[in-house]
Amino acid sequence: METINAEIFTLTYGSMVRQLIADYEDVEEVNKQLDKMGYSIGQRLIDEFLAKSKTQRCADFRDAAEKIAKVGFRMFLNVTAAVTGWNAEGTECSLILEDNPLADFVELPEQLAGLKYSNLLCGVIRGALEMVNMEVECTFVRDVLQGDDANEMRLKLLSSSTETYPFKDE
Amino acid sequence: METINAEIFTLTYGSMVRQLIADYEDVEEVNKQLDKMGYSIGQRLIDEFLAKSKTQRCADFRDAAEKIAKVGFRMFLNVTAAVTGWNAEGTECSLILEDNPLADFVELPEQLAGLKYSNLLCGVIRGALEMVNMEVECTFVRDVLQGDDANEMRLKLLSSSTETYPFKDE
Repeated sequence: METINAEIFTLTYGSMVRQLIADYEDVEEVNKQLDKMGYSIGQRLIDEFLAKSKTQRCADFRDAAEKIAKVGFRMFLNVTAAVTGWNAEGTECSLILEDNPLADFVELPEQLAGLKYSNLLCGVIRGALEMVNMEVECTFVRDVLQGDDANEMRLKLLSSSTETYPFKDE
Repeated sequence: METINAEIFTLTYGSMVRQLIADYEDVEEVNKQLDKMGYSIGQRLIDEFLAKSKTQRCADFRDAAEKIAKVGFRMFLNVTAAVTGWNAEGTECSLILEDNPLADFVELPEQLAGLKYSNLLCGVIRGALEMVNMEVECTFVRDVLQGDDANEMRLKLLSSSTETYPFKDE
């Protein structure tokens, strides 16, 4: 698999976020744009993921969350996430990201409290899961850049069409 | 050295370019913005380059161009470039990039003839060299995305202050 240096990615991502802040002048709008960009990226990345990970079909949402955390993050960002905080129904969980390559060397000024700097990742997960027929909500609920003690993304399954499962190309 | 998957970088870069096109609606302005963003990135990357490459001080511009092509591109983008087309004075040369990870799976529509899609790279080189006291011009003169037969960046040394050489931290 082709790789590149993480720092040029981190800095390029930083440029993009700065550009969006300059464009929209509204933190909520920037969060939305990042999510939207991530969504398109996720729709593309899922193909590489399925091809390269040679992963078995996901049994359910619980299984999908584990694969994102352990295989997906490793494949694309070279880090892993922990999956915690399941609700009783198995439809909600949190991904805890200890290391976030997007945010290396980043500090946010006070006026950017509310910026979901790494919101692209939520979009990526949403876009990728939609391609395998799981509709999810994904939101950063804790972010080290905002002074929190961890990076936590909350994942919530809205619907999944098991009748169109397995993946399209199988 | 930390690495990440090249595809997520390529797609993120693509999102950024699309955003700039939507913002500026003018290809020349997009080229300028990409160069400007690259410039800041280059100013940051030079530190990692000097630290990690453990490269000897560059004797002159010729040497610097070779290091960019063979060590820099390898370190950050995991590709190398060929250095060709030197002028007699040794102040101008071309970098030929066979593989351009920024432009993988990219096709430009006709109305974007004139877009220097990978212009970020020119900015990076300009920014990095300025930090070691070489002022250069760097421009894409051929681009496979524009139908050319190669990716060629033309480098031109404008001034270099040998008196402030070697690198600051030596």
